Amino acid sequence: MRKITVAAIQMSIPETREKSIEKAERLVREAAAKGANIVLLPELFETKYFCQERRYEHYDLAMPLLENPAIKRFSEVSRELGIVLPISFYERDVSNFYNSIAMIDNGEILGVYRKTHIPDDHFYQEKFYFTPGDTGFRVWETRFGKIGVGICWDQWFPEAARCMALQGAELLLYPTAIGSEPIIGCDSMPHWRRCMQGHAAANVLPVIAANRTGTESVTPDDGNAHQTSELTFFGSSFITDPTGEILESADRESDCVLLREFDLDEIRTERYEWGVFRDRRPEMYELIAGK
Amino acid sequence: MRKITVAAIQMSIPETREKSIEKAERLVREAAAKGANIVLLPELFETKYFCQERRYEHYDLAMPLLENPAIKRFSEVSRELGIVLPISFYERDVSNFYNSIAMIDNGEILGVYRKTHIPDDHFYQEKFYFTPGDTGFRVWETRFGKIGVGICWDQWFPEAARCMALQGAELLLYPTAIGSEPIIGCDSMPHWRRCMQGHAAANVLPVIAANRTGTESVTPDDGNAHQTSELTFFGSSFITDPTGEILESADRESDCVLLREFDLDEIRTERYEWGVFRDRRPEMYELIAGK
Repeated sequence: MRKITVAAIQMSIPETREKSIEKAERLVREAAAKGANIVLLPELFETKYFCQERRYEHYDLAMPLLENPAIKRFSEVSRELGIVLPISFYERDVSNFYNSIAMIDNGEILGVYRKTHIPDDHFYQEKFYFTPGDTGFRVWETRFGKIGVGICWDQWFPEAARCMALQGAELLLYPTAIGSEPIIGCDSMPHWRRCMQGHAAANVLPVIAANRTGTESVTPDDGNAHQTSELTFFGSSFITDPTGEILESADRESDCVLLREFDLDEIRTERYEWGVFRDRRPEMYELIAGK
Repeated sequence: MRKITVAAIQMSIPETREKSIEKAERLVREAAAKGANIVLLPELFETKYFCQERRYEHYDLAMPLLENPAIKRFSEVSRELGIVLPISFYERDVSNFYNSIAMIDNGEILGVYRKTHIPDDHFYQEKFYFTPGDTGFRVWETRFGKIGVGICWDQWFPEAARCMALQGAELLLYPTAIGSEPIIGCDSMPHWRRCMQGHAAANVLPVIAANRTGTESVTPDDGNAHQTSELTFFGSSFITDPTGEILESADRESDCVLLREFDLDEIRTERYEWGVFRDRRPEMYELIAGK
């Protein structure tokens, strides 16, 4: 038996970075008080979703890993509470900007993963802000199991989930910022969930997604915004079992903490018994790697 | 606009090959009469699921493509009705046995796909009967769209679905024979569905699955069966939309025909708008191909 409790935090984002970090910390402490060993915050929770519009000034939001205030703060919180915290942040290295997460285990930064798949749409203009990640998919051996993290748009790619599973991931975490589609006009929430439920089902491991909530707007009156736009983030954070069934589910509006205990040894047995990894045929998959 | 209607046939399997082909033909004609252009029958519908036990005599069920009575019969039916029929059959070539499908379009055999992933469990002893397929994943340009077919266990592998999507599949079809798990004791039906719903969601195309129903038993009194065993096939055939939502759903027991019309041009537009194929990073997926 190897029992762990994982939590997903859903929240709307306050006006300032300082207030966002304070709010996130309050929710992380609430999750830990309820027994969470691993706590997942949403993608880029330090700020409003700045990718709604293109502004060169937003590049200033990016910082080197060790200068980022959320990384500094949550390293301390992780050590104090003895928990695992994957922290999403806007990373600047020598010449590039990345959409990254740092895996923090008991105060120690185990490493960084940089978002591999970068979306681009009218109000999700991420290709303007983020260079596609160069780290490859990563899995970390933490004190509470082997954890893989994909960042938002990565969640739409079965390849990302599979690459993490093949490296031994026992849990897949997806920090997220997704909401309305003002141009296409669809509600992508069920599609979004089914995609990740599929990753859980195919890889026989739990999937945890933490999304933001709230409506965020920019108007031409805001500094140098070029057009009015508005996104409503749909929350709907969830935790699945290893067959993809949703065990814990948040609504579209609330700040909340979802928690679930898993026995990772029991799930490993279930994964072995199902036999899908035994029967893979890598030599038949070259098209996926572009060969 | 490029509208097509696809049908999934769910059926229990009669005692003899002749009766099974007759029953399948009756249901195919029913589907065509209701407007189906593409009709999917379940996996190996000619016979009871012989893989419950190991018997060398069952190798005699395998035949070369052009000698198989279902292939012969449904080539005629396909030509008469002007429809597409992917026909599952137990194939013998010079020295091997395969679990195969032949894609028949208006009476013409466009080609054969041999099941890539072969399961092996107490009463699903397929590794005894089938050599893992050597054709690679295949997609056929039919008169009613580009169609990819995975066979049963293939449905658990996101790689199979992706390889077909990357070759331009507009519909993914899965003939199936799946039911109870007497040893593990689980009901894998919802897990099974979620896995394929995930393929639909991730590849933004409809998925159609046709399963058998009925309880099939063998006992030591049956010829040289070595142990008593029994499987109840769970039906639950379905058709999804390109977001993975189940649009048509069969129960666990009935013989039935599911039908759905799709506009393949509209779905292609939806797939392009979603942008997931644009944003793939094949150079990051080498682990999947075993590199």
